[in-house]
Amino acid sequence: MAEQIGSTNGVSFEDVAAVAPALGTYTRTHIVGDLWKRPGLSVRDRSLVTISALIARSQTVGYPHYIDLALENGVTPRELSEVVTHLAFYAGWPNALSVIAVVRECFSRRGVDASAVPLANPDLLPLDEVGESKRAERVSELFGDLFPGVVQYTTDALFRDLWLRPGLLPRDRSLVTVSALIALGHVTQLPYHLNRAMDAGLTQAESAEVVTQLAFYSGWPSAFAAMPVIKEILEKRVKLG
Amino acid sequence: MAEQIGSTNGVSFEDVAAVAPALGTYTRTHIVGDLWKRPGLSVRDRSLVTISALIARSQTVGYPHYIDLALENGVTPRELSEVVTHLAFYAGWPNALSVIAVVRECFSRRGVDASAVPLANPDLLPLDEVGESKRAERVSELFGDLFPGVVQYTTDALFRDLWLRPGLLPRDRSLVTVSALIALGHVTQLPYHLNRAMDAGLTQAESAEVVTQLAFYSGWPSAFAAMPVIKEILEKRVKLG
Amino acid sequence: MAEQIGSTNGVSFEDVAAVAPALGTYTRTHIVGDLWKRPGLSVRDRSLVTISALIARSQTVGYPHYIDLALENGVTPRELSEVVTHLAFYAGWPNALSVIAVVRECFSRRGVDASAVPLANPDLLPLDEVGESKRAERVSELFGDLFPGVVQYTTDALFRDLWLRPGLLPRDRSLVTVSALIALGHVTQLPYHLNRAMDAGLTQAESAEVVTQLAFYSGWPSAFAAMPVIKEILEKRVKLG
Repeated sequence: MAEQIGSTNGVSFEDVAAVAPALGTYTRTHIVGDLWKRPGLSVRDRSLVTISALIARSQTVGYPHYIDLALENGVTPRELSEVVTHLAFYAGWPNALSVIAVVRECFSRRGVDASAVPLANPDLLPLDEVGESKRAERVSELFGDLFPGVVQYTTDALFRDLWLRPGLLPRDRSLVTVSALIALGHVTQLPYHLNRAMDAGLTQAESAEVVTQLAFYSGWPSAFAAMPVIKEILEKRVKLG
Repeated sequence: MAEQIGSTNGVSFEDVAAVAPALGTYTRTHIVGDLWKRPGLSVRDRSLVTISALIARSQTVGYPHYIDLALENGVTPRELSEVVTHLAFYAGWPNALSVIAVVRECFSRRGVDASAVPLANPDLLPLDEVGESKRAERVSELFGDLFPGVVQYTTDALFRDLWLRPGLLPRDRSLVTVSALIALGHVTQLPYHLNRAMDAGLTQAESAEVVTQLAFYSGWPSAFAAMPVIKEILEKRVKLG
Repeated sequence: MAEQIGSTNGVSFEDVAAVAPALGTYTRTHIVGDLWKRPGLSVRDRSLVTISALIARSQTVGYPHYIDLALENGVTPRELSEVVTHLAFYAGWPNALSVIAVVRECFSRRGVDASAVPLANPDLLPLDEVGESKRAERVSELFGDLFPGVVQYTTDALFRDLWLRPGLLPRDRSLVTVSALIALGHVTQLPYHLNRAMDAGLTQAESAEVVTQLAFYSGWPSAFAAMPVIKEILEKRVKLG
């Protein structure tokens, strides 16, 4: 933990103390001393949420520290690799590419070798044909005529390929996706993805802590944009039983 | 194309393969092998859309590769210069400035000299007085009393100057603007600018492919935020005949 | 001012002239020659708005020039330090950290020493207990059950601590917050924060000029997303007298 305090997201603690002593103090008390220790979401999940938010908003200053911390916190190299690939689709190709050099350096420093990285074409997880057909049908009905390209890629490249890659479990892919959506302020797409996340095992308490984590890393406005939308989603889930 | 595969947006192919082999494979199959070859939007237009999205979201990692590819794909130095100037207004001054050094280096490497760059004060294209007066009146009615500064600049600096610069045709300025709006998630301003784009010659099929292109470069959430809005715009255009 | 023209946001004037002469001309005529001289908002406030926008959107290319200009324009080192700390909460921790090295270099070049930087734990400004209790109650009612973490931090870390730090007056904290919200496109949170800003002394004319300033630095779409929301806020304030 001393190291975590020392490097404050890759900016030296001494630089922070020279410019904004309060920011250093808040980092220690709120973030290192409290946020990451809160119950409700494991440190491993907090790392997934945090690196997803950083990549989504190109917060490159935080890459070295939080990539390393993710591996420290139990995110496997295989999972980290899949998070980057997943976010190419959900935050934009260049966002994913922007983190590649840092991850490679981190892998190399830690002696992570090629066998720890997922195959390009692994055996895929089984598909929920009924659920996926329903999703595809609904999207196709809405957008199939006007946007055949996006609709086709969404089915073929995303839900029948990317989402079935075994290196990152569906619940974790949803956690990464939800984090990116909140970090980017794309809250209108939370209903689909948060429901999907909860169907895959994300608890209500965990989803609340995702927002707490993102308040600090993506800013309070991201959290306050997400909360009313998530509240409505949760209330509807209760009603539907 | 080998070169395009080799550099994968300025990050070395070897780095991508070492960290996320699937990302390398997806780049080759979906992006290089399919997206850029899709009918409906020319590679030249795809380049305009892509660099607009990169600049709008400061995806600096992609600048060197995609600036170069734009010139390769038929975007002229004159047009590229105008895209940068246009995006100063539509994505923020610092976003435009962030790409200047890369463009200069690219121009210099390719032997593009000063005569290929547009004048600061060229003869402007003729103004559609009726259309512009209507636009100005509507905006002035809404915001003239409260926001005289923005309203005045919008007329003088944008629609009676920037938009009339001859180095980038109106249809292409609209294409750049629409791309920036989608990349930034500012979809409430799509109705005005997409209609303007289509009035200037952008087809429905092209507008759909703009969204496909941006799904990859700005992320799926940008595409899914834009599609319902664009759908409504297109349906209204059909009704209005 | 010559220096300001010369450096054009940290990119050399020569580079801009080589790539986009019009962008150089627009910078001189619209931004240096007009925007910063407009009545309605002081240059000191324009600097607060501008650096808030840059930090909110990680427009790092503008950091050196605009941090320096802020001190030139009368923002004190103490205030600048507080702006950075404040934006950690309102734009995300990494955004604040991304500017630390530039501020430190600028402080060092100008001989700003440790005594000019605010204490980590100063005596706080007096709290408006009634107003804060009302705010806390309303947020707690909406989100307390589902999001106890965010709600608790919002009270303890933000409104009973950060907002009471004496190094930046409440009116200026609100100005910084409103600027970040507009730059980030989080306009649904403007009603609370713009009202708070105006209660603390921001005038209607000033709030209009905040939008003019941000049109240039965060892009026209940010301005046009904010204007209808601000208009409604101002009209409600008039009705409520």
